[in-house]
Amino acid sequence: MRLATLRTTKGTTAVRRDGDTYTEIQGFADVGALLAHPDWATIAAEADGAQHPAAEAQLASVVTAPSKIVCVGLNYRTHILEMGRDLPEYPTLFSKYAETLIGAHDDIELPAEDAAIDWEAELAVIIGTGGRRISEADAAAHIAGYSVCNDVSMRSWQFRTKEWLQGKNWEHSTPLGPELVTPDEWTPGGAIRTVVDGEVMQEASTGDLVHGPEFLISYISTMITLNPGDVIITGTPGGVGHARKPQRYLTEGQVVETSIEGLGTLRNRATATVGAAV
Amino acid sequence: MRLATLRTTKGTTAVRRDGDTYTEIQGFADVGALLAHPDWATIAAEADGAQHPAAEAQLASVVTAPSKIVCVGLNYRTHILEMGRDLPEYPTLFSKYAETLIGAHDDIELPAEDAAIDWEAELAVIIGTGGRRISEADAAAHIAGYSVCNDVSMRSWQFRTKEWLQGKNWEHSTPLGPELVTPDEWTPGGAIRTVVDGEVMQEASTGDLVHGPEFLISYISTMITLNPGDVIITGTPGGVGHARKPQRYLTEGQVVETSIEGLGTLRNRATATVGAAV
Repeated sequence: MRLATLRTTKGTTAVRRDGDTYTEIQGFADVGALLAHPDWATIAAEADGAQHPAAEAQLASVVTAPSKIVCVGLNYRTHILEMGRDLPEYPTLFSKYAETLIGAHDDIELPAEDAAIDWEAELAVIIGTGGRRISEADAAAHIAGYSVCNDVSMRSWQFRTKEWLQGKNWEHSTPLGPELVTPDEWTPGGAIRTVVDGEVMQEASTGDLVHGPEFLISYISTMITLNPGDVIITGTPGGVGHARKPQRYLTEGQVVETSIEGLGTLRNRATATVGAAV
Repeated sequence: MRLATLRTTKGTTAVRRDGDTYTEIQGFADVGALLAHPDWATIAAEADGAQHPAAEAQLASVVTAPSKIVCVGLNYRTHILEMGRDLPEYPTLFSKYAETLIGAHDDIELPAEDAAIDWEAELAVIIGTGGRRISEADAAAHIAGYSVCNDVSMRSWQFRTKEWLQGKNWEHSTPLGPELVTPDEWTPGGAIRTVVDGEVMQEASTGDLVHGPEFLISYISTMITLNPGDVIITGTPGGVGHARKPQRYLTEGQVVETSIEGLGTLRNRATATVGAAV
């Protein structure tokens, strides 16, 4: 099953995709609200609300207000080894606030305060059933599905201090979507790619994660309860702009496509913001 | 004005303190919900709900579900200079999730997974009116009030990687309270203290911050919108257990008191948890 959050004239709504059509799942303003219902899968499968052509859909972030977005640092085996580093024993974790999220085709806001804005294609894992101290063996049952995220990073601010938060938390910077795809239809393994104005920048396999979704759910939930709709973004492979020689950053008007085979594509234009108070 | 969040038999409620009494501010489940109302100050001042003796009050975290808890690293001038370091140009920022929060007299859960659990007394700034790109000159008007936080830190997990998130996000670890004190009654300058089983561990002045509340509001809101009820915890002075020789950590049954002169005292017992799924 493929779920998304659609913008309509009456606000946002959770929808189910069937072929070229989105069907409204009435009573749920986004996929996150849907996942908070214990019977979400049945409700989603049986929904028969208003229909919308997928081609014209205005998508919001697939989950609009997760209680947590937990992000993982360097986590692609091939890239770590090619950089001559050892595989990490523990995942590096940081977080994003929900106001960073945008829809699959929204503009990425380039703030005036940082000129070094970079892409990071990532596999997103979205929690269905919540829990604390979930074992790795049980973790698969807590995955509602998978999606695509571009963990857009403001590199100047990110490296002002050792903690990355301030490079990762710019409003309206981070597309998440286009859809949540349930685990019966997709498992890690397909290619992950970033293409900027037609040029391939990142390309790897989502099967190459050092710390996979089940391990991450177990590790994070050791600390804290994961709730329905929480998002874990699992790290990016090689090819980010900051590590290139010469370095490459997003500029006004460029189009970034981040995609994962079988999950879909985020297509976002980079647009300068005026830097004024909003 | 002093506001708190009280646990009652009917759930939590925002309350106003008058002398030895808490008065319910009806219709608001916590101080965060109250602050989301543009007329919160008038509503709080005029509330005349049920009264409760303050001495018997069961306090929840003063704000129970902030959309953001933004934490600041090393930020006390005297301590930085005595360590032989330069004053930082930029604040180091990281975050906590809301599930970490506990009330002013709740137990701090010592998880079985980390034996190096440490105190960090901090001044908390709570946002009233939200905003983006707030100037430092305008920032004072966005402060609803001040409170006390103990940013309890699991040092083994914190230093597993360079990003601190996993040492700062254990469920039911972080007391915030006892009350929000509005800026007309308190401004930074009073002493901040941690006392463990009667032994003074940290003692400094809240006037010694390198990056003060107004600067932090301006800096953080450059990136992202601050919402009513959001919490900024402004860093801890010297005297944490991890930096002592020999190192000192919290153990089962110890009582930690973190206080700021004029704001109040958090008094929390450290209690081992079984480490089971919850």
